[in-house]
Amino acid sequence: MRIAVDAMGTDARPTPDVAGSVMAARERGDTILLVGPEDAIRRELEKHDTTDLKLEIVHTNQHILMADKPSIASKEKRNSTMHLGMTLVTEGQADAFVTAGNTGAAYAIAMLYTLRRIPGVMRPALSGIFPMNQLPVIFLDIGANSDCKPGWLAQFAQMGSIYAVNALKQEQPRVGLLSNGEEEGKGNQLTREADALIRTLPLHYIGYVEPTDIPRGNVDVVVADGFTGNILIKTFEAAASYLVDTIRDEIKASVLTSIGGLIARPAFQRAGRKLDTSEIGGAPLLGVNGVVIIAHGGSDANAIKNAIFQAGEAARSKVVDIIRDNIVQA
Amino acid sequence: MRIAVDAMGTDARPTPDVAGSVMAARERGDTILLVGPEDAIRRELEKHDTTDLKLEIVHTNQHILMADKPSIASKEKRNSTMHLGMTLVTEGQADAFVTAGNTGAAYAIAMLYTLRRIPGVMRPALSGIFPMNQLPVIFLDIGANSDCKPGWLAQFAQMGSIYAVNALKQEQPRVGLLSNGEEEGKGNQLTREADALIRTLPLHYIGYVEPTDIPRGNVDVVVADGFTGNILIKTFEAAASYLVDTIRDEIKASVLTSIGGLIARPAFQRAGRKLDTSEIGGAPLLGVNGVVIIAHGGSDANAIKNAIFQAGEAARSKVVDIIRDNIVQA
Repeated sequence: MRIAVDAMGTDARPTPDVAGSVMAARERGDTILLVGPEDAIRRELEKHDTTDLKLEIVHTNQHILMADKPSIASKEKRNSTMHLGMTLVTEGQADAFVTAGNTGAAYAIAMLYTLRRIPGVMRPALSGIFPMNQLPVIFLDIGANSDCKPGWLAQFAQMGSIYAVNALKQEQPRVGLLSNGEEEGKGNQLTREADALIRTLPLHYIGYVEPTDIPRGNVDVVVADGFTGNILIKTFEAAASYLVDTIRDEIKASVLTSIGGLIARPAFQRAGRKLDTSEIGGAPLLGVNGVVIIAHGGSDANAIKNAIFQAGEAARSKVVDIIRDNIVQA
Repeated sequence: MRIAVDAMGTDARPTPDVAGSVMAARERGDTILLVGPEDAIRRELEKHDTTDLKLEIVHTNQHILMADKPSIASKEKRNSTMHLGMTLVTEGQADAFVTAGNTGAAYAIAMLYTLRRIPGVMRPALSGIFPMNQLPVIFLDIGANSDCKPGWLAQFAQMGSIYAVNALKQEQPRVGLLSNGEEEGKGNQLTREADALIRTLPLHYIGYVEPTDIPRGNVDVVVADGFTGNILIKTFEAAASYLVDTIRDEIKASVLTSIGGLIARPAFQRAGRKLDTSEIGGAPLLGVNGVVIIAHGGSDANAIKNAIFQAGEAARSKVVDIIRDNIVQA
């Protein structure tokens, strides 16, 4: 397996990007193509023992910044690490591409300049994978398509289910449509029309699900329009960090509770690991002609390593081919 | 001030409903009209010292259940505590109505059978008030209108701002429109059109806000369509309870961390109080011809008491009249 990695993706680029690539090459033996400025990558590689590891450098000096406007950067920075990495996939020189960079730019570059849509797919979707109670839940769209048509949501359901079966190795994943209630009459016009379409597809569709069904493990694939999906993940993050900050502040507010907090520290660390998305690493951009895994900009080396593993699973399980052969326009 | 209270609203009705009413009558001296079955209410009142308190009973044997379908129950149970309580407001016998019952039914009964819309208001909105960092943030619509037009959102912005100024005593509340990003080009078609309308109104409008702006205290009035708003509050609750459960489970997982957790217990209690919505009690249904405060079905007596105080503030500050005199169709 040959996996191209954007060496200039994370906020702390290229350190975690390269370190994670070294870890992945060591643990699984795949070939990693580091895409980015050769000198900087070499300096990072010197920090590691890379003996016998299959690491190659694909040089380019251009990369896209988090602050870049996707529509402009995707058009003007044609030699960016993202353009180059995805072109390696298009040309068959790599089996997958991993980036922790600007998500909007990755979407635009994949859609408009390199991989392009799988024939039959109306709109590719950005997904997120969350380690809820240790079981991965795939959630899409989390931000690519702010205004969706019902048929797009039906395809998100198909692509998410295919990914869950093949790359996440879930038998019969339960597919749910995010809504504001599960009773009859709930939902909005979009979800009601999408619900009717999804029912016609050969999926294990369980109907409407609510936000609380996700942490409760009641659903494996959650479908939403990109606006609502983005609000959901941002709200989840905002709530979690607000809660953690509040508890931390209160623990530090007195000597006694600080001592209690210190003693209970291993529990907080275990809880942190349970909630840690770096064990998943990244999630696929589904519906384009190649495996693209997008990791968080704040990824550390471990998260990058896991994103590379995610890319390997997706490529090995031929998710893109399976989507191409099975996608239906409902 | 005369405030009607649904004695059969909470999940544990009528115990917390009556106990909270007694507390409110004692602390502020307002007259509380307890609406519900006379015998059951009397039995609850006997548990308290009600000497000199202004408590009256308005008898009815009918009430709406949480499981009732709003459209059916609002039509068929015409003698329900909600119908009666809102009719007291319509007829000027009460200044406000408080219920912890079925929200959808309360909305339908207010809109279609009793209070009805304030002239000029296109759609009433359900609001939620959250005690973020001790400052109340009012958020609307949280579930009444799943499909919204841009002009409705503009009116939610006006009503929320009027409530914040008058009932929550905030000077120049910052009004934000919930979106999936603050940069140009973010949002969906609805938010883009609503944004343009809200800019024409005499509000302290700060544009798009993201979920994280709410706990960060960057906004005082948050506007969203009822579908997205409902997803946001449910996600916040789901994330908070998932996190709390995970931390609790990990603390209990070993003897040492359990001891640490016990020592740090006051900190958890303080954090819990900071996050406790019962200090707010309830939030208004805005846009109908009278003050209706809706509390959580799981409310305890303290939450009911605070919901009654919320109702008193809203009535005293003449929020309904101010909306009637100022609402603009943008």
